[in-house]
Amino acid sequence: MGRKDKLSTEPYKGVRDFYPPEQSTLTYITLTMKEAAERFGYEEYHASILEPAELYRAKQAENEEIVNEQMYTFVDRGKREVALRPEMTPTVARMVAAKRRELGFPLRLYSIPNVFRYERPQRGRLREHWQLNVDLFGSRSLAADHEVILLASEVLRAFGAKEDDFEIRINSRASLNELAQELGLTEAKYKKLRALLDAKDKMDEGKFAAGLEELGVPENTFSGNNTPNDIARLIEELASSGVGNAVYSPGLVRGFDYYSGIVFEVYDTHPQNRRALFGGGRYDRLTELFDDEETPAVGFGMGDVGMRDFLEVRGLLPAYAPACQVYLAVTSPELAVAAQELANELRAQGVNAAVDFGERKLGEQIKTATKHAIPNLIVVGQDELASGQFAVRNLESGAEETLPRGTLARYFTGA
Amino acid sequence: MGRKDKLSTEPYKGVRDFYPPEQSTLTYITLTMKEAAERFGYEEYHASILEPAELYRAKQAENEEIVNEQMYTFVDRGKREVALRPEMTPTVARMVAAKRRELGFPLRLYSIPNVFRYERPQRGRLREHWQLNVDLFGSRSLAADHEVILLASEVLRAFGAKEDDFEIRINSRASLNELAQELGLTEAKYKKLRALLDAKDKMDEGKFAAGLEELGVPENTFSGNNTPNDIARLIEELASSGVGNAVYSPGLVRGFDYYSGIVFEVYDTHPQNRRALFGGGRYDRLTELFDDEETPAVGFGMGDVGMRDFLEVRGLLPAYAPACQVYLAVTSPELAVAAQELANELRAQGVNAAVDFGERKLGEQIKTATKHAIPNLIVVGQDELASGQFAVRNLESGAEETLPRGTLARYFTGA
Repeated sequence: MGRKDKLSTEPYKGVRDFYPPEQSTLTYITLTMKEAAERFGYEEYHASILEPAELYRAKQAENEEIVNEQMYTFVDRGKREVALRPEMTPTVARMVAAKRRELGFPLRLYSIPNVFRYERPQRGRLREHWQLNVDLFGSRSLAADHEVILLASEVLRAFGAKEDDFEIRINSRASLNELAQELGLTEAKYKKLRALLDAKDKMDEGKFAAGLEELGVPENTFSGNNTPNDIARLIEELASSGVGNAVYSPGLVRGFDYYSGIVFEVYDTHPQNRRALFGGGRYDRLTELFDDEETPAVGFGMGDVGMRDFLEVRGLLPAYAPACQVYLAVTSPELAVAAQELANELRAQGVNAAVDFGERKLGEQIKTATKHAIPNLIVVGQDELASGQFAVRNLESGAEETLPRGTLARYFTGA
Repeated sequence: MGRKDKLSTEPYKGVRDFYPPEQSTLTYITLTMKEAAERFGYEEYHASILEPAELYRAKQAENEEIVNEQMYTFVDRGKREVALRPEMTPTVARMVAAKRRELGFPLRLYSIPNVFRYERPQRGRLREHWQLNVDLFGSRSLAADHEVILLASEVLRAFGAKEDDFEIRINSRASLNELAQELGLTEAKYKKLRALLDAKDKMDEGKFAAGLEELGVPENTFSGNNTPNDIARLIEELASSGVGNAVYSPGLVRGFDYYSGIVFEVYDTHPQNRRALFGGGRYDRLTELFDDEETPAVGFGMGDVGMRDFLEVRGLLPAYAPACQVYLAVTSPELAVAAQELANELRAQGVNAAVDFGERKLGEQIKTATKHAIPNLIVVGQDELASGQFAVRNLESGAEETLPRGTLARYFTGA
């Protein structure tokens, strides 16, 4: 084929290829999330990325933009309208509604799905990302809100973040509703106010003030310090549980219309990264999409892209180290199967071992081991196989130790 | 809303919801695959499920059916034709071609992606499934084929399968090509022959014989025992490495046209489940889609659905056990935050603990613990908080032990 018949090696626009070092970072992030969620008794669930598109259209409101412009949808060959999930919450609400009688409440669920949005790729915004979703069903109590925020904080602490690395901003949709009533806003104006508040961080102060004025909302409405009782109690209880960085944030909205109680947002305080990292809230009425029963629910979603930036800027991402512990080079191709058998003996004792097939010189084989950051090397030749004595070389320090075949594995396992 | 405005709680047709017990099985399967691949020095990579559709159209041939009828494709808002990947091999070939200079060969890569096919849902055939993909790049040697088949066998052994639970059937595209030449088949007839061989297991013997006759291929062509030299050597070396269940299978084809050397298939020998479980082969020329360089490659794909059936029929799937070790019930809602703080002390010492919020009677709270299969219970009341003495109850045996607050964690960790 000529050059111009060739396909591009680029991935689809706005998504990522994960070579081993990037995949290792993603694994580190998702594993840390998983362990933190399981520490709190959350159980993992999962679902397909394919969902009926109506699942998202049903709750159109503040998320109209997502439904109309940012959601991947297509019609399948059976004429069904299918969506690639833009978020996980409707899926988990669907699953809970489907088995409400069997599940047992309070019910703690987590998942780390990939979600899709058709948007212009930019820093921190990709068309596909992974997202920890934590949801607690079946309790209306403030103690449930407390737990979910505590867990959000613990996930960050598990990554090595310190309390002053982030701030937890809390508001309540109930307080916001009351405020709208006090101000006598129509439903349309109230909706515009929420959209304005949600976009506040992305606009300059003048534009925000002008927006308030247009809606007839006094400029100082969202600068007051008159904390509502439930939020004050929540902040106090969080402090007593060791979370001292929660604050009341009267203008906080969060993008989804389904929120019905507290909403919160974790804000990155790093000077190079000041922005909302992730958030969540209480959404007691979402399962009503499926039947007439309300199921109280509170949860949050935490994306991998924002977390990667958060960790990177603080040097909290571990360096790549492969799982492989030793590389077996061979002095000639005829010995490749013999090397594989030695490797298999090591594997049976819990050592991760890779072999070379001896098609290149020894020096080239060692370069391969180094390129893959494999820390140790064993050369397998006729002499070694005959004597049963093998030298293990540490490729970083250069140190070498010669051991009989039967005790080689112990060098790596320490057993 | 009235009943008829309600949404269905069903997932999209042909895909699965994974509630915690099903997710736990999937996690067990993928983790076992991961550990086996890493034991052999394979490194994990990943990519988006979204790929340019041309990636699959380019190598149309035996996979025409997949491309034309079974692939999910749609046109995005930027007029790009996008596919949900039906298999992972073209993706990994794309990624290897993109960074050929940097990667270091031999290169061992694995991934456990979800892949999509638009097909009629039936036992063992779903529209989305997960699939271990193992690929070894950069070696033309038979020792590389040997390694990949050895690893396929080791994955099954890691699940607890015994040698007589499966058979490894091996053929070579090279031998098949030679045979076609000897028979003087045209390219079109040879292609028909491959399709016929690939469908052999799904048709009765009479139909297969008629198909051979139509192509002018003698009926006994695929029943001979004249094993080609390279396959004989491979089977011998596998036996020497402890894999005694590999056999020559002259009619074996495997569905993809990109195979260029050995092909193999793992066959389930269970009387209730006799069928091909998974397979793979050598595909040295696939990266030529992207540039003019050949990259030797051999690999296999192993799906979760077939593996689940394989394990289930043999009782090899572990029972569900949640990660949570202890449930903290509370005698009244006011103590919920205090219980959460006790739970947090346990968590800090490595214990997975969930709390109740005390909105229901104790008996109901204990039922929740039992429903979630959480093995232990601690009741948190005023007395316990005042005395600092807590009873840990094993919910299976009913045995109880009372311990001071500071030593509770040790009950679970044994530390």
